[in-house]
Amino acid sequence: MKPLNVVVVGGGFGGLSVVRALRGASVHITLIDVTNHHVFQPLLYQVAVAALSRGNIATPLREICRAQSNVRIIMDEVISVDCDHHVVELTNERIIFDSIVLAPGSQPSYFGHPEWRQYAWSLKTLSDALRIRDRIVLAFEQADRLAPSPEVTPYLTFVIVGGGPTGVELAGAIAEIAQYSIRPDFPSLKDQKISIILVEMHTRLLDDFPEELSHYAKMSLEELGVEVQLGSQVTDISDKVVTVGTHRIESANVIWAAGNEASPLMKTLDAPLDPMGRVYVEKDLSLSWYPWVFIIGDAASCSSHNGHPLPALAAVAMQQGRYVANIITHRIPSEQREIFQYQDRGKMATLGRARAVAEIKGRKFSGLGAWLLWSVVHIFYLIGFDRVRVTIEWLWYYVTYKSSERLIEKKSYRNPFRNNVNGC
Amino acid sequence: MKPLNVVVVGGGFGGLSVVRALRGASVHITLIDVTNHHVFQPLLYQVAVAALSRGNIATPLREICRAQSNVRIIMDEVISVDCDHHVVELTNERIIFDSIVLAPGSQPSYFGHPEWRQYAWSLKTLSDALRIRDRIVLAFEQADRLAPSPEVTPYLTFVIVGGGPTGVELAGAIAEIAQYSIRPDFPSLKDQKISIILVEMHTRLLDDFPEELSHYAKMSLEELGVEVQLGSQVTDISDKVVTVGTHRIESANVIWAAGNEASPLMKTLDAPLDPMGRVYVEKDLSLSWYPWVFIIGDAASCSSHNGHPLPALAAVAMQQGRYVANIITHRIPSEQREIFQYQDRGKMATLGRARAVAEIKGRKFSGLGAWLLWSVVHIFYLIGFDRVRVTIEWLWYYVTYKSSERLIEKKSYRNPFRNNVNGC
Repeated sequence: MKPLNVVVVGGGFGGLSVVRALRGASVHITLIDVTNHHVFQPLLYQVAVAALSRGNIATPLREICRAQSNVRIIMDEVISVDCDHHVVELTNERIIFDSIVLAPGSQPSYFGHPEWRQYAWSLKTLSDALRIRDRIVLAFEQADRLAPSPEVTPYLTFVIVGGGPTGVELAGAIAEIAQYSIRPDFPSLKDQKISIILVEMHTRLLDDFPEELSHYAKMSLEELGVEVQLGSQVTDISDKVVTVGTHRIESANVIWAAGNEASPLMKTLDAPLDPMGRVYVEKDLSLSWYPWVFIIGDAASCSSHNGHPLPALAAVAMQQGRYVANIITHRIPSEQREIFQYQDRGKMATLGRARAVAEIKGRKFSGLGAWLLWSVVHIFYLIGFDRVRVTIEWLWYYVTYKSSERLIEKKSYRNPFRNNVNGC
Repeated sequence: MKPLNVVVVGGGFGGLSVVRALRGASVHITLIDVTNHHVFQPLLYQVAVAALSRGNIATPLREICRAQSNVRIIMDEVISVDCDHHVVELTNERIIFDSIVLAPGSQPSYFGHPEWRQYAWSLKTLSDALRIRDRIVLAFEQADRLAPSPEVTPYLTFVIVGGGPTGVELAGAIAEIAQYSIRPDFPSLKDQKISIILVEMHTRLLDDFPEELSHYAKMSLEELGVEVQLGSQVTDISDKVVTVGTHRIESANVIWAAGNEASPLMKTLDAPLDPMGRVYVEKDLSLSWYPWVFIIGDAASCSSHNGHPLPALAAVAMQQGRYVANIITHRIPSEQREIFQYQDRGKMATLGRARAVAEIKGRKFSGLGAWLLWSVVHIFYLIGFDRVRVTIEWLWYYVTYKSSERLIEKKSYRNPFRNNVNGC
């Protein structure tokens, strides 16, 4: 049997799970990603707050796939996919495929306000995390220069928009580093108030979780000093000002964790998209009329057997990847495929350093126990990563609150700083 | 006695040694640096080859000075120094001083060819090291796309200009990572030749070292596969071509380790400069006519008691810093100062992973013994750094050849890559 040419777009959880599950199959795989690495997204916020270094949560794709001989890796951007002619076009190459799996993920969505992007930093990529990390440290440097004048306020006010897991985890982590890691280095700010405000449109945090855990999350964040504003909608974001409803908050540090939309690549497919820009896929995750074109992960719009839309979780993407790989391996024709069913094994979110909430098969956990569970699960899933090293880094940070990652290059410092100078 | 206002410009070895030595003195210190961190320069090349992460060799200045209450730290750029009026001007602040210590260091000098800068990457700052690291990995990614066409050659040819310690250490380290860390991840390059060429104008490498050690260094690098071209002068550098004498070498990876000049800040002093842009200082390291303006480190031009110019070494800057701090602490008037005398404790350079050369008080060492000595000395001098962590990282890398630092962000990838596409 002639090997199939399989193209996989995206080296995230979805794409990599396809590649790995095709290890023994009679296929030639081409894995395409705009970066050269896989990111362990659930820990991205820890890089943003300088608790972990980028090397701890990212691994070169070539290293992950080193032992697998049927993979070619290309670092490039996919411009479009032509399903009729089985061609994927990159910036300087065209590749013919027998089957393609699109797992390009999502990007932040500013709800029709693309102009907010420049003021409200998102957290989707490693670059995003590094930028947030630099900006947080710079904000304190800037505040140090301005203290004790009232101009210091926007630099010491952190607004996180969005009370889902990313927003909640970031708010807790920023509250902690501000207090324990950074503040001791800025004696001039000793008597200044540092505000961390979490703004959520809905009436509770973590609205995918049971209500009881939402309340626990709110209480825990408040204990850390986070001000939680529920039922509050951001109506405008401009230079150093966030407007929530009609209330203006002066802040130079706005982080956007409120919503995502599918990769713009989906628009090139000429297929119907849901409101989040995701492609409606068939029950076997294929594109209508194209049984060998699959879309998985955050770019696919699909529902569980009881009709609920599937959440944008690593676990969903990974299960989808293995499901699709099985179809490709056995070359199962469209009409013989079983429908994809997501096995919900649970979800969790941290609230600072020693607390978390988790829901696992309907059971609820909170507090230190949930956090230990969270730690074990995340270290366990750092497959292909240096578990030993990450654990050491983590323990080190946990015990000492000392991070070696609070460094700003001159380059990245100059621009924002100059902006600040002009802006204030 | 009213405390003196002392401004220290630069958070390198020189500046920090002044600050530390003034710990107990009756002074208010303002430490100014364009970055927020101190870099352990002797290990910068290890970041450039992705053996260490930036957190391993850099520490926030605020963390280093945390315990010292008489220091204020400002992250800003010094525009000029007005010695007559005792004013230092920053981008958005002016500071009055009683005494100032200028330790701004040096920058790469392209010997009258500033246009070479865009093609030949220098290695002075942490940003430089990170850029070289990204470029090396990108060169292999690009070669992978082009192999087996002959267009692959410039991407697999590394030219290091300058056979001093930086050039020698980089050449050895690049030879090793190319062979052991990166190559295994690029099966398509298995049969391709990777060239590492070290170009030195003089007739031997490391010409500050005894001749015997120069020969040993050359032999060691050649064993690692480095081609050493002595008595060779670079006459031109353009896009993907380095001309050595009249010989053209196709290379997209040119690293400049050939020369430095003092910080341009020195030009604002209105003082005579040597050919490297350094200020001629008095025997007490002060500026002529200004007994409370001191210049130390790479920006100062001074000679040892036997008339030899002092080398640009961390040890020189540190001894100068302590010497100046003593004058300031005791407010020693100009005419009562002893002259500065450099105590030469030796110098060393590594040649790959288990070899080095060292000269210590006239005694010569080479091989594994010198390398162990080098390791101990460097780990010992990582003061204020996480010695334990760096040692672990190092051992890990040494044993596994696995580095977690070979990651390229999309952002930094796009530009060079697009350039390459257009350029070839």
